[in-house]
Amino acid sequence: MAGPEIERLIQLLARLPGLGPRSARRAVLHLLKKKDTLLVPLAATLREVGETVHACDTCGNLDSRNPCGICTDSRRDEALLCVVESVADLWALERAGVFRGRYHVLGGTLSALDGVGPDDLNVDGLIARMQSGKVREVIIATNATVEGQTTAHYITDRLASQNVQISRLAHGVPVGGELDYLDDGTLGAALKARRPL
Amino acid sequence: MAGPEIERLIQLLARLPGLGPRSARRAVLHLLKKKDTLLVPLAATLREVGETVHACDTCGNLDSRNPCGICTDSRRDEALLCVVESVADLWALERAGVFRGRYHVLGGTLSALDGVGPDDLNVDGLIARMQSGKVREVIIATNATVEGQTTAHYITDRLASQNVQISRLAHGVPVGGELDYLDDGTLGAALKARRPL
Repeated sequence: MAGPEIERLIQLLARLPGLGPRSARRAVLHLLKKKDTLLVPLAATLREVGETVHACDTCGNLDSRNPCGICTDSRRDEALLCVVESVADLWALERAGVFRGRYHVLGGTLSALDGVGPDDLNVDGLIARMQSGKVREVIIATNATVEGQTTAHYITDRLASQNVQISRLAHGVPVGGELDYLDDGTLGAALKARRPL
Repeated sequence: MAGPEIERLIQLLARLPGLGPRSARRAVLHLLKKKDTLLVPLAATLREVGETVHACDTCGNLDSRNPCGICTDSRRDEALLCVVESVADLWALERAGVFRGRYHVLGGTLSALDGVGPDDLNVDGLIARMQSGKVREVIIATNATVEGQTTAHYITDRLASQNVQISRLAHGVPVGGELDYLDDGTLGAALKARRPL
């Protein structure tokens, strides 16, 4: 069939999330069809990203600078620190454009099943960042899953001795959501956290 | 948010079929997590494929050799020539392992709507391959779509003056298929082409 290089490329692309062997084959044909406008720039950009992008030593964000662009951006409020599970969550908050403080990426959640303990998360780095005394509020933005909530509790405990305000994201009805389609837990949380109009 | 290199990588990956902006972002995070085992080999393989893989001058298949591995494979029957629309179709036949002759890739189908005329397809190359006198049978394996059938008719006309047998793939019930779910056209074709047991 196709040569060994093409086969290897198909196998590598098939390991990306969202692509299987069949869509990887289609992707390879597409890449070869658009060689100059897609394949060549993609190869170069992949190489550049592989060589320059690293995790920020301060917050764990991925960037070609270290400390990263967010950590060094003086227009961002360094008194606000948002704790997220992963870089994907950081990107989601940045896309929404709703937060102008700094971040701290844990790199996962506590999970007894998966054998992830406190030492596997970057919690010590978070505590160390409190020493500067500049952080006024830590916003815990872990996912609203069992693991995320467990991790949030653990971090709250660890931060208890620090002179810092701790908050978490609100639970409630998603904007645009319909009550009829919501689960009981969310409805209960939304009712409990109701706000005066 | 992420640096310009990451943004560029997301944009390039999002142009692959089967990936959108969201899955491209997930793919980039996955690539950065598996930098040594996935990102670096992928960048190198993409570059290698981009530099070495070209369309075979004889049949139009994509390979790092020219003529390609199939055209130069002496174990394949050069008296049988299978005409396909695209390299994807060639790969599909090779995956099935049901054909041991040579191929000819047209590079598309006739389509008045998309402005694809006979000159846009590699039909002259097909006629030229008849001159050697070695081809005994041409199997037209265009898709069973309107464009594919139109193209098949056109090729049959063009080959009429050549001393060569012309055939096309059979229509019928897909193996494993149920009659109840088949369209009328396929059922009619299967009935018309019924074979004695």
